[in-house]
Order: sequence, then C-alpha cells, then structure tokens
Amino acid sequence: MNPSSLDRGALGRTLTRIANATPAELVQRAQRNTPLHAARRIGMTGAPGAGKSTLLGHLAMARASKGRLGVLAVDPSSPRSGGAILGDRIRMDELGTSPELYIRSLGSRGTSDGLADNLPEMLDAMDDFGFAEVLLETVGVGQTEYAARAQVDTLVLLLLPDSGDMVQAMKAGIMEMADIFVVNKADLPGAQRMATDIRRIGALTRHAPGAWVPPVLLTAASRPASVSALSDAIDQHQAWLAAAGRQAALRRQRARYRLRRLLEVQVAEVVASQDDAFLALPLRQQLSQAWTLLGKAIGA
Amino acid sequence: MNPSSLDRGALGRTLTRIANATPAELVQRAQRNTPLHAARRIGMTGAPGAGKSTLLGHLAMARASKGRLGVLAVDPSSPRSGGAILGDRIRMDELGTSPELYIRSLGSRGTSDGLADNLPEMLDAMDDFGFAEVLLETVGVGQTEYAARAQVDTLVLLLLPDSGDMVQAMKAGIMEMADIFVVNKADLPGAQRMATDIRRIGALTRHAPGAWVPPVLLTAASRPASVSALSDAIDQHQAWLAAAGRQAALRRQRARYRLRRLLEVQVAEVVASQDDAFLALPLRQQLSQAWTLLGKAIGA
Repeated sequence: MNPSSLDRGALGRTLTRIANATPAELVQRAQRNTPLHAARRIGMTGAPGAGKSTLLGHLAMARASKGRLGVLAVDPSSPRSGGAILGDRIRMDELGTSPELYIRSLGSRGTSDGLADNLPEMLDAMDDFGFAEVLLETVGVGQTEYAARAQVDTLVLLLLPDSGDMVQAMKAGIMEMADIFVVNKADLPGAQRMATDIRRIGALTRHAPGAWVPPVLLTAASRPASVSALSDAIDQHQAWLAAAGRQAALRRQRARYRLRRLLEVQVAEVVASQDDAFLALPLRQQLSQAWTLLGKAIGA
Repeated sequence: MNPSSLDRGALGRTLTRIANATPAELVQRAQRNTPLHAARRIGMTGAPGAGKSTLLGHLAMARASKGRLGVLAVDPSSPRSGGAILGDRIRMDELGTSPELYIRSLGSRGTSDGLADNLPEMLDAMDDFGFAEVLLETVGVGQTEYAARAQVDTLVLLLLPDSGDMVQAMKAGIMEMADIFVVNKADLPGAQRMATDIRRIGALTRHAPGAWVPPVLLTAASRPASVSALSDAIDQHQAWLAAAGRQAALRRQRARYRLRRLLEVQVAEVVASQDDAFLALPLRQQLSQAWTLLGKAIGA
C-alpha cells in the first residue's frame, strides 16, 4: 500500500476489522499480507500514573519529522463493560492534528497478556499503511511487559521518582528488559537519586563487549530538551540495532510471538466453545478432541 | 492420599516436581490424578503494597481452626535471574509454625498470565494432600486477576485508601470480579470514604434476586476483629456458593481453564523449539507443522 498520503479512514477500518477478527479470520488474513517494509517499533511502558501518555504525546511531536508516525496505546478496560476510562487518552488526542500522526487507543479487555487482541496483526497493518514508526504504549508492571518486549525493537521503561516502581520492576524482571530507562516527572524530589540507583544497578550487570548499555534519562514533559534527549536515545538504540545486525533476530522473535498468539487464540476459542459433557470426559480425551478441533480451526 | 498428618516433605517435593514439570510430564500427570475431595479456594489479590501478605498471614491464623490450610503466594520474579525479592515472604513465613499450616511461595517468572506455571496442577495436588482450604495470594492489577478468578471460589480484592487502586481496578475490570472488597490499612485517612465509594458503585450494579452482593470491609492487620469479620465474610460467600448450587459451574470453569493452560504451555514449547528455517516458512505451513507437533506432544 504505502500511499503518498495517509488514508486515515481506511486505516481505522482496517484496525477495527483486525481488532474484531475471529481466530479463523486471523488465520485467513495471515495468508495474504506480506508487509513490504517494517516500521520502527518503539515501546513505552510503566506503572499507572507514571505519565506515559503525556510524555508519549510530546515524544510523538518531537519525532513527527522522522516520517509517518503511529501511536497505539493499549488501555486496560473491563472484560464485561468493555469500557475504558479515557482521561489520559483525551489529553493525548489533542495532539492528533498532524496529517502524518495517527493515534489509536486499543482495549485490552481480558486478554491473557494484557496487550490488545490481535496486536501483531495490527502492527503489520501499520507497516502496510507506510508508517515509518509506531509508538506502542502499554501499562502495568508485569506480564504486559513480556508481551510488549516481543513486539518492539526499543523498549523504554518509565519510572516515577520516590515510588515503588523500581522495586516492582526489579521484582517482575522488567529492569532487565528495558533498552532505555526514563525517570519521569524529574521535578519531583528523589528523581536524581533514583537515576543514580538505576545506574548503579546497571553497573553491576556485566555487559558483553559491544553490547547496548541502557542509558538512564531524566524527563519532564515541560522540558523540551529532556524529550529531545529521549528521542535521541531512541535513535541511538535503533542505530545500534542496525549496526549490531540485531534486526533479523528481532524479526524471528516477532514471528515466534505471532505464531504462538495465533495458536493461543484458537485454543481459547476451542476450549470456550465446549459444553459440560466435553468437560466431563477424561483429560486425555479432552486434549485429543480439542487438538482435532484446533486443526479444523487453523485449516491444517 | 489425605494422610492423617501432613507430610510436608512429600508435599514440598510434589509441588516442586509439578512446578518444574515439562508440558509432556503435565499431560502424563493429568491422566492419573483424580482429586477425591476439593479444598475451598480463596484468592486474595491487590496492587503491590496493599498489605496482602501481612493480612493474609493474620487471616491464615484466624482460619487455621477450620482444617488443614495451605497458602500459595505467587511472587513476580525475574524471567532471567529467577530471583524473587522475598521481603514480604519472610514476614509471612514467621507464621508457618502450625503443623496444619503450609505456606509456599511460587515464582511467576515470565508466565503469560502472571500466575505460577502449572498452578492448576499444584492446586489439585493440595487437594490430594487433604487440605480443607487453600489461600492463593496474587499480585498486580490486570491480567493476573483474570487468571486468579478462574482458579478460586471466593476472590477477595484488597485496596489501599487514597491510592489509585480503585481507579486502576475499575479500568481493568477487576471491580466486577471481586466477591469481597477489603479496604486495608483502615487507619489511613480516606479509608471510610473509599469504602463508601465502593458501596456506591456497587449500588449502581443491578443484582439479580438471590445474587451475591459483595460486602465492603475495612481491615487492619493490627485489629483482630477486622480480620475475623473478613474470615466470616469468606464463610458467608462459601455458604452462598453451596446454597446457590454454584460449585458445579466453578468446577467447569476450572476444567476449562486447566485444559486451555495445558494446551497453551504445549503451544509455547512447540513454538519456542522451532528454528529459523521453520520461521521462514509461509504462516499456513508454520501453523500446520506446529499443529502436528502439538499432537505428538499431547499424545493425540
């Protein structure tokens, strides 16, 4: 596709179609799209209240000159009401006025990994629509980060000064996943100390020669220079990935993740559709029958 | 099994064996164990810092008279280092002196649902060892709760006064899952107001006649009466489940969850073990081959 000007309507409809696709439709879809080029994928993650949306909005403005830019923001939302509390979103949507900037909020209603259903396919669609870069915003400290990590090239972790964020991130193993650390709301007391703590922990890690050493930045949405510095750090990481020949490995990691998710949603569908009589069978029979149904679902 | 006195060594070894079981071993295992009786399963969940471990410790002491009691505490921990920060755990382990009280901390290293790998099988093992009740502690607001919800009869949600906990829980749809709300650290300012807010939100929900209306309790680990009140509320919910004939539905929900997880871990294993040549195949072929391998893995 890669049209010279972004067809926002067509993109919106495509993303909606993917978001609502049944597992069978996803498999169908997977046969045909072969993205011609791949957008840079930047993830920004952090605990609720870390100021992700605001900083991401400013970052998007700072990076808009680098080509067509998409922002996909994953919002936790109710599995029952389907509703999201959109305070953060509204603030960010104010920025969505540039013709080459596209912002979309995605619900994560009850998905097992805390990301939006069918996110790999949506990211592929962004490629089809000629995006140069996609910023993926995810929330939470925990499972979501593992899933986000598998989807992006560069993962930015936002932490709030004097919060329990760092301890929680350490507990969840998130510290080891980040490519760039950001202590946000740097005007708050404790920001410098937290940055120092993170650097100290980083210094305890032995980096192989030529490995990427995650920088620790202090940002405030009100300080444009700090947003530029973050933008530069992202560019540096992207350049390092290219120089280190890491892109092929990232592509494989995504392919694995996508295949697994595709099978998992089929499994969930097959299991959810079974009745009580099925569940009363011995487990071995349940497994066999579920496997047979899975084969039909994926057209194997 | 159901031995007259708890064989802690045997239980510990069994849980370790299950925690480390390969997907193939899990399938094997699934053929043979048919739990004779089912322990009550009580989940306690809430954001980090809500005081879950401390309150759960006191609750365990309050409920120890009701029969053999197990506590399984799921700790987020690093997917790489495998290490957990055990501050909370150590506090709770001090309580583990009763011969009929068994406490075990489980890592959730990088599991897709934020619970421990093979948790359904561990819970079944607790049944085999004659536990009357299992308290399951999970952390985080988000995906983990969906998974915990599928594992327990009674879900207690802990919230901290004047925190963002309630808004986050609403966003994530957790409020609609809880059977009992607890505003913990009730000495903090804002506790009463938060309880009122939760009740108000509850009053907006239309309950069917005879439905369970989740109570909202104020607790403090330092106030034994508040812990007793929580314990009573759990008993009332358990009695309601029995009277309303809900247990069969809960058993089916667990059977579904267990089957799905069992298939998912197999899928993850199959996908992880594929090489680059496999990932270069067209997706349809990848799906087909993965399905064939899955069939072998589950012995279908």
